[in-house]
Amino acid sequence: MGEFLLGLHCIGCNREYGPWAVDYVCPRCGPVAGALDLVYDYRLLSQRMGPGTFAETRRPSLWRYEALLPVSADYAVRLRAGWTPLYTSPDLARELGVGALWLKDDTLHPTASCKDRGTAVTVAAARKLGRPALACASTGNAASSLAGFAAAAGIPCYIFVPRTAPTAKLAQLVAYGAVVFKVDGTYDQAYALALEACDRFGWYNRSDGQNPIVVEGNKTAAFEAWEELKGDLPDFALVSAGDGSVVAGIAKGFLELKRVGFTDRVPVVYGVQAEGAAAIAQAFARFQAGEPVLPASERAETIADSICVGTPRDALRAVRTVAETGGGFITVSDGEIVAAVRELARRAGVFAEPSGAAPLAGLRRLAADGTIPTGGRVLLFITGSGLKDPRGGLEGVAEPPVIPPTLSAVEEALG
Amino acid sequence: MGEFLLGLHCIGCNREYGPWAVDYVCPRCGPVAGALDLVYDYRLLSQRMGPGTFAETRRPSLWRYEALLPVSADYAVRLRAGWTPLYTSPDLARELGVGALWLKDDTLHPTASCKDRGTAVTVAAARKLGRPALACASTGNAASSLAGFAAAAGIPCYIFVPRTAPTAKLAQLVAYGAVVFKVDGTYDQAYALALEACDRFGWYNRSDGQNPIVVEGNKTAAFEAWEELKGDLPDFALVSAGDGSVVAGIAKGFLELKRVGFTDRVPVVYGVQAEGAAAIAQAFARFQAGEPVLPASERAETIADSICVGTPRDALRAVRTVAETGGGFITVSDGEIVAAVRELARRAGVFAEPSGAAPLAGLRRLAADGTIPTGGRVLLFITGSGLKDPRGGLEGVAEPPVIPPTLSAVEEALG
Repeated sequence: MGEFLLGLHCIGCNREYGPWAVDYVCPRCGPVAGALDLVYDYRLLSQRMGPGTFAETRRPSLWRYEALLPVSADYAVRLRAGWTPLYTSPDLARELGVGALWLKDDTLHPTASCKDRGTAVTVAAARKLGRPALACASTGNAASSLAGFAAAAGIPCYIFVPRTAPTAKLAQLVAYGAVVFKVDGTYDQAYALALEACDRFGWYNRSDGQNPIVVEGNKTAAFEAWEELKGDLPDFALVSAGDGSVVAGIAKGFLELKRVGFTDRVPVVYGVQAEGAAAIAQAFARFQAGEPVLPASERAETIADSICVGTPRDALRAVRTVAETGGGFITVSDGEIVAAVRELARRAGVFAEPSGAAPLAGLRRLAADGTIPTGGRVLLFITGSGLKDPRGGLEGVAEPPVIPPTLSAVEEALG
Repeated sequence: MGEFLLGLHCIGCNREYGPWAVDYVCPRCGPVAGALDLVYDYRLLSQRMGPGTFAETRRPSLWRYEALLPVSADYAVRLRAGWTPLYTSPDLARELGVGALWLKDDTLHPTASCKDRGTAVTVAAARKLGRPALACASTGNAASSLAGFAAAAGIPCYIFVPRTAPTAKLAQLVAYGAVVFKVDGTYDQAYALALEACDRFGWYNRSDGQNPIVVEGNKTAAFEAWEELKGDLPDFALVSAGDGSVVAGIAKGFLELKRVGFTDRVPVVYGVQAEGAAAIAQAFARFQAGEPVLPASERAETIADSICVGTPRDALRAVRTVAETGGGFITVSDGEIVAAVRELARRAGVFAEPSGAAPLAGLRRLAADGTIPTGGRVLLFITGSGLKDPRGGLEGVAEPPVIPPTLSAVEEALG
């Protein structure tokens, strides 16, 4: 496969590059402004494929969409990425006053976050290209995802984190055997150092916003929702946004389904950010006002650590792709995010990390202000497991009472 | 479905009970000694079904085995239990000198442990029976599993934990909205109080060893491995054992496949316990010596908290069912378990909690003493995610070095 890949298109200057001609960003435009987008021969795809083609592969993973990926499944590592469950949540839908509510549970991934999608395809690309090692800068889900898939591939993995990264966050990385550099500097310095080291040592860089393959993995979440809903796509789709690569991927996925003729209608996609880390939301506001989108950089502080990003590395792509669906970006408070963690767990049985539950908080906002009308059909992407950061589940909750081991004490506690 | 269910059989006194005649254990024999086993009409099943029947359901969950379950999938809650991936690990197989090695990755469950199998079927039974609430005694995976599925079902859930249960372990429970009682007493007292409260309030008790339905869910892991391996079962299967319900379920699953004629050969099943919590291993030694198996009760202390069980609630069933496969129980040290956590993560990309990695430590032992011969084909069941207890990943590992943000510092750190 990879046979339908035409090449790379710079979202900044519209230059075209052949398949695999450039690893990362447009050499002319540089990072963020020169994010590269993989383009496929959609006309040929629509001639050769039908909506049922994917099911015929019988693959319970994102590799069922091999035709719309740049790399053959032959290069995939063993860990199962994608084909996560889609749940309906009629109770929550009723309470929110929407016509239907679906939850795409991407917590059910080998390293417990949606980052495994981008990683799976990127690691397959590294194997195809014969790269000797993998690397990325991150303190969170992308790092543990890369470490896990690199371990499964038997490829060395180098992770750059700022020195402030908490020890607990390093547990997965260390277990997977990644070489971890704690950089005595800011996250920006760690990110820049990862770039330099990849240049020098030939390591393949998975960092969000840098590697265009990551978005190709991310888009498969949209394909899966489409297939699980038998082509009857929702009206709205919400997902949290930090660097912007996940929301851009999901929007791209829906748009590609239209390009190959498998749907007439694309859900309106909203990226959900924390009020304290809203660089893309602000960039989107500038975009709507006809002002320059870049540079996008703000202070970042939120309980939702996976989207606590001050300088989003895929801001331009996120803004452009989301705009193409007719959607936008909204912000929610940390209080709303914590409430959403609890609501999602209690009402739907899905325990998400704060960033994973943020779309539910976003839906409340959009339903309240009428953007999502009564009866609107809504899909939420739940991007990371609550086990990644259990604080969200405990925040503001009273300790359970201690009772003596007697039935009368149970009766009393029950009131 | 449930149409093939004949009834319940007491493993102690061999009394038979009709389907749904008894909720928990044999009234005559009591707990542990009177564990009830669900029996199906295997002859009728083998007439009505073929090995391909399960795939025809197209269900990516344990409900594809509805015919061998007591409850119809109509009662299932939305969360996806079962149909977890099976990975090959040729590198580890080579190093261990075995002919083939498969990992059944049951960490990929909604609440991140294999307990979701037993819970899924038990909660479906509660819905069929119209029970008003669910309950169990546990500090760990069974509790969070029940809390999650109860939340998805919209059924109240009551959890009994000993007062010593650490706050972090309560995060999932609290998030799912379970009512948690911290009992001022031992785990045994909490267990007994849960029984009493279920009797009094009509709550449906999911506690291991108490509810026979739990084992029916657990056995589906064996069915899946059989189906994924296209019927070519391994020679040996290893899984960790605490209360004994999981290993009993897996052994039962393989034995049932033989009973319905889908395999001639059953893997030799080994339960793996920690040296510091080896009550079932000791009970099995008594069984082999022709001595009474029960009571089984020992001190329990191990880093593998999910199998840190002093008084295993399903010891007799575990001993009997494992013996029927020609297998047994072995113990491994905490040091070996911690090494196995790291090895499994580094070599296979699967991050398990200590109890989840224990089977790999067990395999090392059995390969070293020749019980598993060179060339033997081995399946390990990985029962819980490392995110449940990240200590295993960090144990005895040096902190990553802090380096200045320069390429020369990276080069120096690389040596």
